[in-house]
This record gives sequence, structure tokens and C-alpha cells, in this order.
Amino acid sequence: MAARNIALVGIGKIALDQHVPAIAASPDWTLAATISRKGAVDGVPAYTDFAAFLAERPDVPVVSLCLPPVPRFAYAETALLQGRHVMLEKPPGATLAEVQELERLAAARGLTLYTTWHSRMAHAVQPARDWLTDKVIRRAHITWREDVRKWHPGQDWVFEPGGMGVFDPGINALSILTHILPQPVHLTGAELEFPANRQTPIAARLAFSGNVTADFDWRQTGPQTWDIEVETDRGVLALRMGGNVLEIDGQPAAGQASIMGEYPALYARMTELVQAGAREVDLAPMVHVADALTLGRRILTDPFDF
Amino acid sequence: MAARNIALVGIGKIALDQHVPAIAASPDWTLAATISRKGAVDGVPAYTDFAAFLAERPDVPVVSLCLPPVPRFAYAETALLQGRHVMLEKPPGATLAEVQELERLAAARGLTLYTTWHSRMAHAVQPARDWLTDKVIRRAHITWREDVRKWHPGQDWVFEPGGMGVFDPGINALSILTHILPQPVHLTGAELEFPANRQTPIAARLAFSGNVTADFDWRQTGPQTWDIEVETDRGVLALRMGGNVLEIDGQPAAGQASIMGEYPALYARMTELVQAGAREVDLAPMVHVADALTLGRRILTDPFDF
Repeated sequence: MAARNIALVGIGKIALDQHVPAIAASPDWTLAATISRKGAVDGVPAYTDFAAFLAERPDVPVVSLCLPPVPRFAYAETALLQGRHVMLEKPPGATLAEVQELERLAAARGLTLYTTWHSRMAHAVQPARDWLTDKVIRRAHITWREDVRKWHPGQDWVFEPGGMGVFDPGINALSILTHILPQPVHLTGAELEFPANRQTPIAARLAFSGNVTADFDWRQTGPQTWDIEVETDRGVLALRMGGNVLEIDGQPAAGQASIMGEYPALYARMTELVQAGAREVDLAPMVHVADALTLGRRILTDPFDF
Repeated sequence: MAARNIALVGIGKIALDQHVPAIAASPDWTLAATISRKGAVDGVPAYTDFAAFLAERPDVPVVSLCLPPVPRFAYAETALLQGRHVMLEKPPGATLAEVQELERLAAARGLTLYTTWHSRMAHAVQPARDWLTDKVIRRAHITWREDVRKWHPGQDWVFEPGGMGVFDPGINALSILTHILPQPVHLTGAELEFPANRQTPIAARLAFSGNVTADFDWRQTGPQTWDIEVETDRGVLALRMGGNVLEIDGQPAAGQASIMGEYPALYARMTELVQAGAREVDLAPMVHVADALTLGRRILTDPFDF
């Protein structure tokens, strides 16, 4: 089958690091346009105005949005109203209600809407899910500690309202958790540390039903930690390196690990969804974040500057 | 048809002011038990332990939960697991995820779960919904200003995590808004005023798509204001007094106003749901609150004490 044209909206770090190479490596997709205020990709027609792109490029049936969450809704709505399929970077929006609106709009028009969660595509996530499917969960703990200065250098928007703070990486952990646990959980309490000069938390400790806990921190220098450990009635599973390494009872485990990278796997899934005329909209990770910000105890901590 | 037995859990102010009289006035229901640490109702068997109630009273097929949102999930889950139908005061839980879990549990067991929104039963809400159904909305504004000292005297839990602060009354306005507007809206921005010594906001200003705005304030002494004004392509609708008074273009309007009070209407609806074996779970008002707490800009304001 011939490759489909796709456009990328928001040519920033995540687009250049992940989306552009994934599209370039895919036999399914051709990067046919970019839309961005500043960024561009060599050899690809670059638009700064989304309306102009839509008017001039009816040959591009799919758009992938990788700009920050706050402005994303307007682009997604416009694209769907113009009959384009839409793929959304995580988190899929600034609010739950706006994504629910997009889902209704896409469904009414028979268009694909895909709320991607790239960490679910990490190599060892599917094997972990398979292993847990028939186990009883006794306890689980997430440790997600990284250095915001390394991963979001100077990106003040992550500390602005809607930027999610430490939930920007933390939601990746929650996207894995909600995918691998055989039963859903719900938040029962949270402590959120807000730098005195910022609008979003820099650290969060979450407690869920079923003895599930999480420790998110954006202040970790040195080695970075992205681990999920799950104690079951028949052994202990550990997913390390952001879902890329699986251990059972402390030993490396094989399983049917994905051979694709995370973003190539997302674009392969988008191909399936567009071919099937289907939607995949899962808000569970975002619901947990909204619940944490609703129910969490706010603690003021030291000011943070990049 | 004979009246059904119902139990009330959490005998506090809202139970005594609203639930007990509504049940007493209904031909459908008999208050057969109360479960509460302290409260009781004259002439009704009073339990302090929910497990004891469930074990001793298989003759009570329905429980109505009017305790604060944080402890509510455990009672609701236990009741459903014991085969009882469940009715929930607003807001239906402390988190969105927990209510979604209850909905799945109730559905799996064929039990009724009803997330009540009492303000939707105010006399003029249905006529307002009917009038708006074929109009184009140009703009809408909610003004919901009341005195927390009058309505929640000494109730510190409203300012604790999960207590919702000014969203406790504000969610009533949102429950009306989401019921009467012909199209859904989503939050686009919010400012939240947190007293320096408290965990939940005492005031909030919200902006939604479609030129919809809201002004919630819990510091209003003197006259209290619970108004929703909607400007349409064919006139201006105003709902005043918390949904009880309807005006069109400044003139009192009749319409098919409900003759029941809010809580009697909720219990009448619960009768219908139990008879039909149906569920009614609408999280839209709570999604807007979670979105506001996720996306809102936090502003510290003067400490508040009762």
C-alpha cells in the first residue's frame, strides 16, 4: 500500500527527536507538511498558518499534533471539522472535557482520533501486561525521578497552568500502570509540592486503592529512575528504564518484547486505526492526574528556576 | 405499589434538612435505617456500623449516601458488592476514577447507581432547558456567590483536600449549566483564590469555550446570588435563585415548571431507575471542577477562619 501523507503540527524538541525520525522510518507515512511558528524540517513544505495549510493541502488526510497541550484543542477541532484524522501527543489536551468533545466530534464524522501514550509502547510493557493478567496484585510502587533541567531545559511552560509540572513525565508512568494492571485503581490521597514561584508541582506522592503508590520527583540529578515494581501472589515484577526492561523476581525476563521503538509503534498503530476507521481515546492516565490535582494536599517548597 | 425500604448513610445537616423530609413525604420510600457515627432519626433504627447494618438488614435494598465525598467510595463499593442499589449525594465522589469504578461495578451486577445533582431538579431548570434547546448560545455567565459561614458553619472539611472549597456550591451551578446548554463546553482557563491557610479555593473565576464564564465566591455576605444568564440568538434567558426562577428577556416566564422540590424529585427519579434496573451516572459537572483545578492559576489570598 502506498504511504499516506501526514502533517506534523508543532516542530519543537519532541517533534524533531521522535516524530520526524519515526515518520521517516515508516513505510506507511510520508511527512508532507509541517505547521509551526518557528520550526521546520529540511525538504518538507513548512507552513506557519494552520488555516492556510488546510486550505492548500487537501492531499494530507492526517495531522499529528505535538505542540503543548494548552493550544492543542483548537488545532484538533479545526482539523476534524476539515475532515482530517488526528493523532495527539500525550497528554491529549489541557482538560478532560475538551478531549471528550473531540471524541464526540470525531465519532460523529467517522474520523480517527488517537490519544497516544508513547510509554505504553516501550519494549517491555506488553510482556509485563501479559505476565500480570492472571496474577493477584498485592502492592505496586512507581518511582519516577528525573531532572527537569535535563529534559525540559528552560521550558517555563511546564510550570505554567496546564503545563502539568512533574505530571508531564509522571503521566507516562500512569499510562503504563493503567495499561498493565488487571484491575483499575483510583486515587485515595496525594501530596503535591509546588515551588513557591510556580503554578504546577515539582514533586508528587500519590496513593491509590489496592496498595498502589507513586513517587514523582523532577529534582533528581545524577542517575534517573523510571521504575514500576509490582508484588503479586506469584512473584515480583519490575519494569525499569521507563518500561524498557522487565524483571521477574529480580531476574531479567524475555517475553514477547516489542522490537519497535515507542514512536514508530505509535505511527504503526495510527495506520491500523485509520485503515479501520476507528478511534482510540483513553483518558485514564489523565483522569488520575486531574484527581491528584483535585484531591491532593498542596505543600509549598523552595522556588525553582532553570 | 408498596413503598421500598431505604437506608440513609451520614446523618448530618444535608440529611436532616433535605433527605429525611423528602423520604418521609414520598409514597415510594420508607426510611428503614440510618447509619451514622453520631446522627439518628426519631423512630428509625440507627446503626453506627455499616457492616452490621448490611448483615442484619437484607430487607433494605437501597442505600442513599449523604456523607462527605472522601469516605463515600468505600460505602458505595461495599453496598454494591452486597447487592444494594446506591444513590449518591453530589459530588458523587472524591475522584472521577472512583465513580467510574462504581459505575462498572454496578453495571456488572445489574444494580442501580444514581449520581444525583439536586440543583438540576430546581423548579425552573427543565423549562430553561426546553427553551434553550433550539437556540444558538452567544454568551452565558454564572454568578454563584454565597456566604460559606452561613451554609457550612464551622465545617472545616470543605477546606481540606477533597472538600472542593467554593466548588461545593459551584458544582451545583455547573450541574445546571451542563444540563441546560444544547452543546457541551470545556474549560479554557481559570483563576482560583486559595486562602493562605487552606487547601481548597474560596473563590474561582472560570472561562469556558463558547463565551461561557463563571464567577464563584464564598465570601458574599448579605443577599446571596445564584444566577445563570444566557444570551441567545432569540432573547436572553435568566435562571435565578439557584434554578428556581426563570426570566426571558427580563420578564417572568412560566414554562412547565416542576412542582416537586429538589430532593423529592431526586427520590422520585431513584424510584424510576430502580424499577427500570437502570443507572444514571453523569460526571460532567465534576469533570469541569477537576479541569479547573488542573488548569487553573492559583492565587493566594487572605487566610480564612470560621
